[in-house]
Amino acid sequence: MEVALLGPEGTYTHQAADQYFSDYGYTPTFYSTITDIFDSDIETAIIAFENSLGGGVEGMIDLLRERYITITGEQILEIDHCLLSRESDFEAIERVRSHPQALTQCKSLIQEHGWETVEASSTAKAASEVGANEAALASPLAGTVHGLNVLGEGVQDTKSNATRFLILNGPMDEENDKTSLILDPPEDRPGQLHSILGSFSGHEINLSYIQSRPTKRELGDYYFYIEAEIDQESEAFGKARQCLETYTAVDVLGSYPSANHP
Amino acid sequence: MEVALLGPEGTYTHQAADQYFSDYGYTPTFYSTITDIFDSDIETAIIAFENSLGGGVEGMIDLLRERYITITGEQILEIDHCLLSRESDFEAIERVRSHPQALTQCKSLIQEHGWETVEASSTAKAASEVGANEAALASPLAGTVHGLNVLGEGVQDTKSNATRFLILNGPMDEENDKTSLILDPPEDRPGQLHSILGSFSGHEINLSYIQSRPTKRELGDYYFYIEAEIDQESEAFGKARQCLETYTAVDVLGSYPSANHP
Repeated sequence: MEVALLGPEGTYTHQAADQYFSDYGYTPTFYSTITDIFDSDIETAIIAFENSLGGGVEGMIDLLRERYITITGEQILEIDHCLLSRESDFEAIERVRSHPQALTQCKSLIQEHGWETVEASSTAKAASEVGANEAALASPLAGTVHGLNVLGEGVQDTKSNATRFLILNGPMDEENDKTSLILDPPEDRPGQLHSILGSFSGHEINLSYIQSRPTKRELGDYYFYIEAEIDQESEAFGKARQCLETYTAVDVLGSYPSANHP
Repeated sequence: MEVALLGPEGTYTHQAADQYFSDYGYTPTFYSTITDIFDSDIETAIIAFENSLGGGVEGMIDLLRERYITITGEQILEIDHCLLSRESDFEAIERVRSHPQALTQCKSLIQEHGWETVEASSTAKAASEVGANEAALASPLAGTVHGLNVLGEGVQDTKSNATRFLILNGPMDEENDKTSLILDPPEDRPGQLHSILGSFSGHEINLSYIQSRPTKRELGDYYFYIEAEIDQESEAFGKARQCLETYTAVDVLGSYPSANHP
């Protein structure tokens, strides 16, 4: 089974894909932008959706709304940056390469050793560029891919760094407990969001995620991306949907099993 | 009065500042990053907050929550890109410089003329770099600042492009009809957001904006930035706040007059 994902080889998305698709004997195909992934002929994709430090991935919800896709799963990955090098000890390192976010997340270690920093477009790219007296901050998988020594694991300042990935048009599960949907109300009116959320709470459905996004029609005009802790095939979801449709257009993007936090 | 804002001279923020502070005889001080503005010794600042096409400005809500600031106003600016050049007609243009977002927003014009594109870190920077046979897509103010000819106004593909700016620690108004607040619930529980929103709708207060952001404590743990259409000094807001405090920590960031959409 082929899967489209953000490259190069050794990204955290690649690591998440290895975990999610390990039972399917999958073949990854790497793309350099998110739009390329959505435009690809490969049906199945895995994309980074939100991070515990940075929040949502810019523009991703707009793509989920605009493109014809089904969300079939999610995967949560702890982001543990490794210090990867061709050198075998810390003393030889003078310069460290990585994505600006990873450099910021590992500030203590970098300052402690007084290393020079070089920015790269991705952590995986940084790992591919490591030269003598250098190290990269990247995934353990990037170390394996480029044959680098792991001089440190989980070297970031804060430990609560996890990313949630969504699987698009992947294999369907039979037991689903989560549903993603887009609600696009026709016009703004007082208490609208409260009425919408009442359709869920009235049927005892909990929401795990809600984001508002501009409709691009005019400033102040929003649509909502919501994740509800229920299967769309359930009776309660059917009733909630019946209520919701009295307030807003409803577009279900898919039901899937919720990922366990590692 | 001194005001800190994102530079260089001629940015859309600069144009919004000219409009908002025109009665105060203000002096702009330009910074190259948002963090530099928040770290500046200058008390008053104006920052881009949300755009009708792109949504919220990445990371801004986190800064509003973490720093000690008061929101004292807002300003809405229609983003009309001008085609600016040292040349005096379209035929002489071969290359167009701008921020990647502006280049995307003016795709039709660029494709029609088959112009080469060069990316810049801001529209104002692009205007400062225009050479022979070149044009920049930037604000009318950037044209004035750099003495360029305006070969076209409002040349973007879609007309619904507006940006909302917030004024921080500025002059206070006496008549306020909008209040920004941060709600940080102690733990997630079913129907929590519905209860919170019920505190507003129960006191007939409409919300004009709501965003959830990760608390950085753990994945799935969010706080909310809300704009309510009411003054914090009103009786209804006092009652709503009393309800809210039974569910969540409440931090009012300020009351101010809502901006008219131009």
